[in-house]
Amino acid sequence: MFDIAIIGTGPAGLEAAITSRIRNKNVIIFGNRNLSEKIERGHLIKNYLGIPDVSGKDLRDRFMNHLNSFGQQITEDRITAVYSMGDYFSLQGSSGAFYDAQTIILASGVSAEKPLKGEQEFLGNGVSYCATCDAPLYRNKDVAVLCYSKHEESEADFLNEVCSSVSFFKLYKEEAEISDSIVRIEETPEEIKRADYKTIVSTKEGNEYSFDGIFVLRNSIAPSNLVPGLKTDGSHVSCDRNMKTNIDGCFACGDVTGLPYQYIKAAGEGNIAALSACAYIDSKSRQKDK
Amino acid sequence: MFDIAIIGTGPAGLEAAITSRIRNKNVIIFGNRNLSEKIERGHLIKNYLGIPDVSGKDLRDRFMNHLNSFGQQITEDRITAVYSMGDYFSLQGSSGAFYDAQTIILASGVSAEKPLKGEQEFLGNGVSYCATCDAPLYRNKDVAVLCYSKHEESEADFLNEVCSSVSFFKLYKEEAEISDSIVRIEETPEEIKRADYKTIVSTKEGNEYSFDGIFVLRNSIAPSNLVPGLKTDGSHVSCDRNMKTNIDGCFACGDVTGLPYQYIKAAGEGNIAALSACAYIDSKSRQKDK
Repeated sequence: MFDIAIIGTGPAGLEAAITSRIRNKNVIIFGNRNLSEKIERGHLIKNYLGIPDVSGKDLRDRFMNHLNSFGQQITEDRITAVYSMGDYFSLQGSSGAFYDAQTIILASGVSAEKPLKGEQEFLGNGVSYCATCDAPLYRNKDVAVLCYSKHEESEADFLNEVCSSVSFFKLYKEEAEISDSIVRIEETPEEIKRADYKTIVSTKEGNEYSFDGIFVLRNSIAPSNLVPGLKTDGSHVSCDRNMKTNIDGCFACGDVTGLPYQYIKAAGEGNIAALSACAYIDSKSRQKDK
Repeated sequence: MFDIAIIGTGPAGLEAAITSRIRNKNVIIFGNRNLSEKIERGHLIKNYLGIPDVSGKDLRDRFMNHLNSFGQQITEDRITAVYSMGDYFSLQGSSGAFYDAQTIILASGVSAEKPLKGEQEFLGNGVSYCATCDAPLYRNKDVAVLCYSKHEESEADFLNEVCSSVSFFKLYKEEAEISDSIVRIEETPEEIKRADYKTIVSTKEGNEYSFDGIFVLRNSIAPSNLVPGLKTDGSHVSCDRNMKTNIDGCFACGDVTGLPYQYIKAAGEGNIAALSACAYIDSKSRQKDK
């Protein structure tokens, strides 16, 4: 059981990890060992106080060095679902592994991609975010993969080994490198429907395709889809000035909480979220002692 | 007329200044050219993301270099009062100068010193925060100086030239270096009272001293005493997640807004406060254009 599970390796998640470590908490942080792609692609950053005129890449290296100085590893498993277990949380990774933690800190940034119409409604009922977890449900059946990131291509190949057919919607820029036996549909999904135990993808091109199930594979999952019952305001997680969400033990920080999308704002919130999580853990542990 | 007046040169005020400058605002920042004494005295700081294991002094130098890179000067005038003038603010310095600004950002930190009982009640009625401003009111009269900082000693000397007598309560550690004709009272003020047009200082030692007026000279003035009508929660300024206070055009950031008292949290809030101030100015200017 971890004390704190942090989802996201942008400035908010990293600052949360560092502050939690200083407070002697047992931390797991999920994300990319290259940290945030957004940081790396950032132009010259002029207002990160104390580090004038820094390139995105240089800032990323500094952040990474800082994290390394605590010996904190980044776990490269994409979290596809968070389950509230009463007094702790269970996080499911796309590897199929489960991770238990007393508290979670959402620092997953904002996704440019809006969920499709129907996506949230049919999640868990013909729509899945995790190939490893749910492939067994579709053995010898027909599935589609709505793939928003080149990193997820291997999931399609894996499904192709298990399912009787895989149709692939490529929703990223790079060339697809997937098994030749996967059916490529060069259209843009617009809506997900469900009828007669089938999941239907209707496209902007005006066609409808029917499958036993579909897998929506994104780098980041909308927080409201990740954590059931989480209160959001549009695409942002609602939280108070202590970075508390409406769910006990669940905190949020960084771009996921709303504007401004700025590095130093995100880091500042990561600090607050970590200290709030520590206070929450300490208060629970005092209650148990009584 | 400045666009933004920032009170305080800790991480919150500095980040607010830098972000405001990037947004092409005309900024004045009040504080100490050595920045915050608290920063300099800070021990090793381990969780300012991107700058691992940094000493307070080193961090101060980095902050100062960052500010200097914008050519932004620090104005060393202690703000003793803020007047709302309808659609702008007028700030009075202890030098006697007035500064006009469309918006203000309070980043003055938390003061260890609580206001004395009666201090707020009699402010402007026998109690003053500014020798330069109010000395003329007490020409040839008897005043006391409640002095919380060695930096303010010269104010006592100045009053001694104007008033018929000055009594001096030393409320800091260092030796006092003031004119020999100033009366030193080696007791600790506990409460300020007012009776028969006199201001009375009652001390922990159980004595009462009567004056025509008293000057309370602190490095930092409680925000609620600085800005009339400002909503506070204990010693902290109440604000929302955009760092807006209850007063239009008045924003707050850093320790003054509450816990946690952390550098990176303060800097993050400075960023938000600046962007909120910029949005406020831009929205007012659009209204005028209509």
